[in-house]
Amino acid sequence: MAKKGNIVVGQSGGPTSVINASLAGVYKTAKERGFHKVYGMLHGIQGFLDEQYVDLSTQIHSDMDIELLKRTPSAFLGSCRFKLPDIHENPDIYEKIFSILDKLNIEVFIYIGGNDSMDTIKKLSDYAIVKGHRQKFLGVPKTIDNDLALTDHTPGFGSAAKYIGTSTKEIIRDAQGLTYNSPMITVIEVMGRNAGWLTGATALAKTEECEGPDLIYLPEVAFDVEKFVNKVKDLLKKKISVVVAVSEGIKLEDGRYVCELSGGSDYVDAFGHKQLQGTAAYLAGLLKNEIGCKTRSVEFSTLQRSASHMASRVDIDEAFMVGGAAVKAADEGDTGKMVVIDRVSDDPYSSAAGIYDVHKIANNEKLVPRNWLNRDGSYVTDDFLNYIEPLIQGDYSPFMVNGLPQHLVMKK
Amino acid sequence: MAKKGNIVVGQSGGPTSVINASLAGVYKTAKERGFHKVYGMLHGIQGFLDEQYVDLSTQIHSDMDIELLKRTPSAFLGSCRFKLPDIHENPDIYEKIFSILDKLNIEVFIYIGGNDSMDTIKKLSDYAIVKGHRQKFLGVPKTIDNDLALTDHTPGFGSAAKYIGTSTKEIIRDAQGLTYNSPMITVIEVMGRNAGWLTGATALAKTEECEGPDLIYLPEVAFDVEKFVNKVKDLLKKKISVVVAVSEGIKLEDGRYVCELSGGSDYVDAFGHKQLQGTAAYLAGLLKNEIGCKTRSVEFSTLQRSASHMASRVDIDEAFMVGGAAVKAADEGDTGKMVVIDRVSDDPYSSAAGIYDVHKIANNEKLVPRNWLNRDGSYVTDDFLNYIEPLIQGDYSPFMVNGLPQHLVMKK
Repeated sequence: MAKKGNIVVGQSGGPTSVINASLAGVYKTAKERGFHKVYGMLHGIQGFLDEQYVDLSTQIHSDMDIELLKRTPSAFLGSCRFKLPDIHENPDIYEKIFSILDKLNIEVFIYIGGNDSMDTIKKLSDYAIVKGHRQKFLGVPKTIDNDLALTDHTPGFGSAAKYIGTSTKEIIRDAQGLTYNSPMITVIEVMGRNAGWLTGATALAKTEECEGPDLIYLPEVAFDVEKFVNKVKDLLKKKISVVVAVSEGIKLEDGRYVCELSGGSDYVDAFGHKQLQGTAAYLAGLLKNEIGCKTRSVEFSTLQRSASHMASRVDIDEAFMVGGAAVKAADEGDTGKMVVIDRVSDDPYSSAAGIYDVHKIANNEKLVPRNWLNRDGSYVTDDFLNYIEPLIQGDYSPFMVNGLPQHLVMKK
Repeated sequence: MAKKGNIVVGQSGGPTSVINASLAGVYKTAKERGFHKVYGMLHGIQGFLDEQYVDLSTQIHSDMDIELLKRTPSAFLGSCRFKLPDIHENPDIYEKIFSILDKLNIEVFIYIGGNDSMDTIKKLSDYAIVKGHRQKFLGVPKTIDNDLALTDHTPGFGSAAKYIGTSTKEIIRDAQGLTYNSPMITVIEVMGRNAGWLTGATALAKTEECEGPDLIYLPEVAFDVEKFVNKVKDLLKKKISVVVAVSEGIKLEDGRYVCELSGGSDYVDAFGHKQLQGTAAYLAGLLKNEIGCKTRSVEFSTLQRSASHMASRVDIDEAFMVGGAAVKAADEGDTGKMVVIDRVSDDPYSSAAGIYDVHKIANNEKLVPRNWLNRDGSYVTDDFLNYIEPLIQGDYSPFMVNGLPQHLVMKK
């Protein structure tokens, strides 16, 4: 068997608690399968174009380091939000990428990311095939949003859901402890522009000893402000503390985001996505005016994607698995593919890595099915919860040093 | 020895992660010392006045329940924000309280709370002495804010500090992973109206592998907007990701809260405290306008006081200790006192329960000493960190059920 060349791996898009577990899976499997060097792109394809990369053997020295990497949130290699132009628009950029790949003797290019990153894998693998380049291009899914098609779920989702479920329980406890004879409404805002998977995860808080949120609104169903206010008023007739979870991306029937009603922010990111903020704050203010009781808003914000101290063991293990599976697939000749997670069994839960053509995946958002929401779109169903519960099970204890979780961080 | 009567215990003010550990300490010690029944006031003195109370033996059935209670955030008994009138203003309310105490054969009244709660202990113990009532009144300190005098620190502070340190590390990782060649400023908002203890705790994130926040602003020092903007501009010349931590209560030289500059909320609570919100959001917006780069704000909000999944073992143990010590003190004849935590040794850290006259404590806020901040008031010193570090050590594993922490909740 011919001696193997090198691998390069990058991370892209919004970070998650487990994106580094996938990196660990790539690294460990590449070493086990006899690849020579594993390079990491610094800040994804954007940094790679500036020839910013690192030999990962200078960073990972032991199995202990690999375990630490699995417990480190955010992109160890640095991330980017960089959209490759279409090939005909700017062939030079493709020439440059492949010249760097050739210079580094790269045989396998692995990109860990979401929808936009799979677009990168598609374009690069297409280009390689058209131009006769030998490199293989594999995608590893990653997003807390769980909005990738064809995979049962995405690495990063389970941990974010576990953090959201835990924090929602804690907030409900907080609210109930505070309310005696004057009512209080708490509005929780969860990430999710178009897909409500994470907002639905607040329903995990509904357990034996916790009633969970009272209302849950996802972007999949048009939001009716008047009906919402009336529902809250009705709830206040029966209970003193009302907790509502809303997605940052809930929209009115006419398509306007609820957060736009408050004036909000107009920042637009590199993919043309509007930055949403303030949905919960807006609704809390509205309810205060309409009902006159105390209201408050809580945004889980950045914490929901970076709280690796509350990561799910299933999620970390699966993230590691798909990283390794991408190396294996490339090593066996695949290219232009994304590794996915197949749910093999529900009870007991088990999963395995599968593989799909990336052309079928990119830019195709997976939303929460309408029948996993109740009729008026104000809560998720048991089917939703049965789907999500296996994904939040178990944990990896953080490596605590001086009272705080330790992370693996790039040595310069 | 005469057969002992009953104890009543209540919780008051803002919840913490460990206020129930103090309740557990009261309950267990009361049982061990032979008190007959332990009653819990529902929603503190306010519910007690409505004769809302519970026999805790109907709620706590085992040592396992006690352990679960130690891991349950927020006030198990329910809290209140109710200020007793001065005795001469409304003697009827005092008569009512003592008639309920007599009816329930209460010998010891224990109140777990902050400054405002110690005021309740003071008034009730004064009244009892003046009127010749036999009950003993003891206070157990509780506040994430750490602003009580005479105690080395308050139960609840260490756990909040641990959560804040952990989350700050995770946010710094998130920010560094996201920034390649376009800068980003993150402004973190931490609770603390007048005392900056919790905001200073963000400096715990400064560890071997994390540079920590770049700037930290406490309410103890007047905030200068122009100097702040210039400092951030200077930092951006050297680094791409700047992380700033501010207290919700930072004020200008003229006494106005920074959050008031944005118009903010005008809600005022029962103690006349203005509700503060939006300091970080205001500053993030300001920096975006002044500097033109991407900015974002994160509010730790309610999570910092209810995240019992990240509680400190030292904090839980001390909260339990002071609860027990209050029962012991009352049993030995003390009244009108608050239990405090004395720091016995720094290295190795050890602490013990002490006791002080509550007249010396109430309504006397303990601020961060000026010499524990650097000269221009933009960071805390090593002395601050040496004080706080022992308080965040160790953890109690949450009891995980179906992937989420389990809590002990009042059975109706």
